[in-house]
Amino acid sequence: MAVYTDITDVELAGLLADFDLGVALSLKGVAEGVENSNFLLETEAGRYFLTIYERRVDPADLPFFLGLMRWLAEHGYPSATPIPDRAGEILKAVRGKPAAIVSFLSGLSVRRPGAVHCREAGAGLAALHLAATGFPGVRANDLGHAAWGPMFRGLKNQAEGLKPGLAATIDGDLAHLAEGWPTGLPEGVIHADYFPDNVFFKGGAFAGAIDFYFACVDALAYDIAVALNAWCFEPDGSFNITSARALVSGYESKRPLSDAERAALPILAHGAAMRFFLTRLHDWDATPTGALVKRKDPLEYERKLAVHRAAPDLVLFG
Amino acid sequence: MAVYTDITDVELAGLLADFDLGVALSLKGVAEGVENSNFLLETEAGRYFLTIYERRVDPADLPFFLGLMRWLAEHGYPSATPIPDRAGEILKAVRGKPAAIVSFLSGLSVRRPGAVHCREAGAGLAALHLAATGFPGVRANDLGHAAWGPMFRGLKNQAEGLKPGLAATIDGDLAHLAEGWPTGLPEGVIHADYFPDNVFFKGGAFAGAIDFYFACVDALAYDIAVALNAWCFEPDGSFNITSARALVSGYESKRPLSDAERAALPILAHGAAMRFFLTRLHDWDATPTGALVKRKDPLEYERKLAVHRAAPDLVLFG
Repeated sequence: MAVYTDITDVELAGLLADFDLGVALSLKGVAEGVENSNFLLETEAGRYFLTIYERRVDPADLPFFLGLMRWLAEHGYPSATPIPDRAGEILKAVRGKPAAIVSFLSGLSVRRPGAVHCREAGAGLAALHLAATGFPGVRANDLGHAAWGPMFRGLKNQAEGLKPGLAATIDGDLAHLAEGWPTGLPEGVIHADYFPDNVFFKGGAFAGAIDFYFACVDALAYDIAVALNAWCFEPDGSFNITSARALVSGYESKRPLSDAERAALPILAHGAAMRFFLTRLHDWDATPTGALVKRKDPLEYERKLAVHRAAPDLVLFG
Repeated sequence: MAVYTDITDVELAGLLADFDLGVALSLKGVAEGVENSNFLLETEAGRYFLTIYERRVDPADLPFFLGLMRWLAEHGYPSATPIPDRAGEILKAVRGKPAAIVSFLSGLSVRRPGAVHCREAGAGLAALHLAATGFPGVRANDLGHAAWGPMFRGLKNQAEGLKPGLAATIDGDLAHLAEGWPTGLPEGVIHADYFPDNVFFKGGAFAGAIDFYFACVDALAYDIAVALNAWCFEPDGSFNITSARALVSGYESKRPLSDAERAALPILAHGAAMRFFLTRLHDWDATPTGALVKRKDPLEYERKLAVHRAAPDLVLFG
């Protein structure tokens, strides 16, 4: 949950004066998004989301993120789209921080996705990749495989503190990933954080995705790998093969995978687990106890790493 | 900000199955209300607030609070109203906690109210008192003047810790309040927490009040006294007499005060400052550092106490 920046009625009126949205009718800070301050804003013109970007988002990346959201909405993908002000600007400022008003996307995220949700989510992810085709923006994946070794060098003590012996195990994983990481896979814009809480459903059907603030250009199949980890593990730590097959077949209903992409899924899933393990390990230590952000347990992803390490083909063959 | 209780899509669907509101289209936890978990809920039937009552609210009081909200809405007061399920029940349960769905009330609260807002707020408070007339519910003010002495007995060390010598000063205030506290003033249902963040405006006009979870039966003029403290002090601690006059005259535009009520305002305002000083002093110490609740500074009300102590007639004559 997060509302880091307060916004007064007077500041809001000042912001809205630049837009053709009428006056504000209500404003509610929402407990959503750990990176930014988010408000549900109702004006005479309808409902919107007002986001104020906090320090974890690099302002230089905002034109990519907001441009992508606009592109996706214009290309038929159910995504919140930034609203331009009268001068055509979508990137605004509130209290000296970057801010944007985006359209409201309705739908409900699913807490415990089943195979049917996974199939829908997979299809929605392929639709995202297809809709983003041709988007001219470029942003490297700064949390991609090249970053993991350097990231872990500063986190070895934390890993040992979490579980004695873990640093050596992670070093082994990193060597394995560096050696076998696939090249030449089809690339494009990926969501890179396609977790259940970022995907909306209506009546069991995919209804849209939110939170594009990790989006970047990388292997498309890596996005599937992130999703397999996020959607297809049971609360007891076991991998649900039915859900995984449903997710991949949902994806392939819109965009069939090449043989190389399919063959790469096990190592991509191992790597995707590494990415979230490392950032959670970093945040676990870096988040002050009194912060208003809920810390995410790195051990959840340590267990996923162990699953991929022990049975690399699980993702594909069960 | 507060979302203490999580609610899953499955639990929400279970709750809504009892209502004629269609299925859920979106659910957002809102950073509002320190006592409860609040969600903005959109269903096929419209927009609502879903509140889950946490431990600070006594479940035995909920029929009074919810009954009052319904009564007010039925009597023309702009208040969120509880929605009954198909069996006519308004008090429901989520995860074993009491919960209610209430209608969505739009409007914006004002961060720094001016005299015009104070006039509107005063008129809105009188409208509340008039609309509540005849409401059959009864709830004593458990934070009223009789409670302050006993409350402070357990807080003397905290007061001294805040400011050496403060305990004796507060004891003096309490003796003064006990001696001069007015009796026989017109009583009725009061809001008892009529602060700017609980009052909504649209286009500068009063648009409704929320958060009736301190409402009780007490002297109507005491509600004005609470509001004078909450609305008419400047950030520098000075009392804005123009705002105070506007608030009282707004009130009297709907419900003229008796001579006794008017004469009682100074001591009522002193007492109302004591009530918020004491609860803030208690919460200041009792709130764990890591809690998701923003602590409110007791010193703000210690300064207001000092103003009333030094110039008791300020509230009326400037």
